[in-house]
Amino acid sequence: NSQLKIFSLNSNNPLAQEIAQEMGVELGKSSVKHFSDGEVQISIEESIRGCDVFIVQSTSAPVNEHLMELLIMIDAVKRASARTVNVVMPYYGYARQDRKAKAREPITAKLVANLLETAGATRVIVLDLHAPQIQGFFDILIDHLMAVPLLSEYFQSKNIPTEDIVVVSPDHGGVTRARKMAERLKAPIAIIDKRRPKPNVAEVMNIVGNVDGKVAILIDDIIDTAGTITIGADALRAAGAKEVYACCSHPVLSGPAIDRINNSAIKELVVTNTIQLSDDKKSPKIIELSVAKLMADAISRVYENKSVSTLFD
Amino acid sequence: NSQLKIFSLNSNNPLAQEIAQEMGVELGKSSVKHFSDGEVQISIEESIRGCDVFIVQSTSAPVNEHLMELLIMIDAVKRASARTVNVVMPYYGYARQDRKAKAREPITAKLVANLLETAGATRVIVLDLHAPQIQGFFDILIDHLMAVPLLSEYFQSKNIPTEDIVVVSPDHGGVTRARKMAERLKAPIAIIDKRRPKPNVAEVMNIVGNVDGKVAILIDDIIDTAGTITIGADALRAAGAKEVYACCSHPVLSGPAIDRINNSAIKELVVTNTIQLSDDKKSPKIIELSVAKLMADAISRVYENKSVSTLFD
Ligand SMILES: Nc1ncnc2c1ncn2[C@@H]1O[C@H](COP(=O)(O)O)[C@@H](O)[C@H]1O
Ligand SMILES: Nc1ncnc2c1ncn2[C@@H]1O[C@H](COP(=O)(O)O)[C@@H](O)[C@H]1O
Repeated sequence: NSQLKIFSLNSNNPLAQEIAQEMGVELGKSSVKHFSDGEVQISIEESIRGCDVFIVQSTSAPVNEHLMELLIMIDAVKRASARTVNVVMPYYGYARQDRKAKAREPITAKLVANLLETAGATRVIVLDLHAPQIQGFFDILIDHLMAVPLLSEYFQSKNIPTEDIVVVSPDHGGVTRARKMAERLKAPIAIIDKRRPKPNVAEVMNIVGNVDGKVAILIDDIIDTAGTITIGADALRAAGAKEVYACCSHPVLSGPAIDRINNSAIKELVVTNTIQLSDDKKSPKIIELSVAKLMADAISRVYENKSVSTLFD
Repeated sequence: NSQLKIFSLNSNNPLAQEIAQEMGVELGKSSVKHFSDGEVQISIEESIRGCDVFIVQSTSAPVNEHLMELLIMIDAVKRASARTVNVVMPYYGYARQDRKAKAREPITAKLVANLLETAGATRVIVLDLHAPQIQGFFDILIDHLMAVPLLSEYFQSKNIPTEDIVVVSPDHGGVTRARKMAERLKAPIAIIDKRRPKPNVAEVMNIVGNVDGKVAILIDDIIDTAGTITIGADALRAAGAKEVYACCSHPVLSGPAIDRINNSAIKELVVTNTIQLSDDKKSPKIIELSVAKLMADAISRVYENKSVSTLFD
């Protein structure tokens, strides 16, 4: 069998370290620096000839920097005669630009897929794509992991009486995800139904389902500026929910997000570490769960050519 | 005939404006903004269906930002049913990573060529590639312009007696370029020959050719940290040159460049506007010449399907 090598780039080194530790291997030696003019300078400092190489990189902010690091690393790994070039992207940036919503828009999520393939990726491991259809943007193999089991376990460990819980989707697009969690927690679901009664009139929040007297758990894939989730939390409280938790796979948390969360009705925001939180994005309300074990398991299974069972919860 | 449209991205809007003005057209309406999380958001605000579109963008610093803007714009233009997608890159970033100089290095200049093609570029117009071989990295048509005629004209306009001039290449790699200028100025050439007599001993500068009592004109393609060119200027003065001018196509001018130039023996540094100089990169010693006419001429000729004669001086 050919040798396994895991390399980390700059977006989420702690996660890459943790993955390597889970697998009982050392991270491959490499460095990503910049030339004086800002161009990325990559050097791989050990032989990878004939190896199965896994490159860990989230394309979180600064997204263009992290994406170019990744593409250049893929090129270097390919040219260094690796047997396979596997890209582990815990967070897939540009996933929300997955269709033309207006005329003359790019479909950047598809562009990114094409760029990865062109650079030389032979397989991709991702977690909770904004739209599962993005899998079909790739002609190479893609493994799609889910954080729902991890997030569900956390809430199970809180021992909230099952009959008190309701899992809430903040919009219609997220109902499938909410249902997956609700099944695990043996709880019902509710949906926040935003409607704009007339143009230029503020949206009203209807809650479909019963939340009165319940512990509501809002679940989303990405929390970015946190507008949707914090307004949703307020609406749940107004509808009688006694506590509101929120959770997501990818804590983008840009702009006003942290302030909004800190000032919101949300008791705890449970996130994963697919995106490394900078110090200004920490908050006492935020609980981070690690996807390292999930990722390590997927890497092992890809390497051993077994089915990636974490795909199917 | 299909319609011509020129769009500018963010790296060098003044040059794009000037090109459009030379051609007597307005720039196409578009905007490049960022979402809250830093992802690029492009919108093209007029129909380009069936048009021949030219996108003006230098991949100067911040190179990864400017390159991703360009790739996403190409994707948007392609999906908006343009007839052709022509990329006008006055400065081609990552050109110096054009070969594996060490084991396990990427060849980023080739990666960039592949990324442009994958995104959907149908033709590329560039100026003074660091190595002309980069033309061969493309499977689509590429037009390669040169700044030597423009730079030569400037020095001709100074009316320095021809017999006083010597054109100097700062290294062996630049001799062809220096010869092209020397032919235009009807002057001889000289070459700076850096040698390291023994390992760990400082380099010595030998000047091949006669510079004593002459007006030396150093010419390079890129001036980045300006180490080579300022040390070269000192060596020329030490060898008896009475004045030293320097010129280049692409003023990258990173790190200590401006300080070095201001404190050097260089009387004037003549550059082109392929890279927009930020305010901290201005210097009373720097003279900027515009490539707008050259670029406009190349765009017109590509559009009219004529030979791009500016290629062959
Ligand atoms: N980084 C981003 N931040 C905010 N909105 C985005 C971003 N990328 C794409 N979008 C927009 O979000 C919409 C898709 O979001 P969704 O409806 O949740 O799938 C599209 O109309 C995009 O224009
Ligand atoms: N942006 C950059 N800044 C400085 N050096 C670079 C850059 N990109 C590539 N290089 C190095 O420059 C060398 C090529 O320069 P040259 O010998 O002038 O063609 C290669 O060995 C590269 O490692």
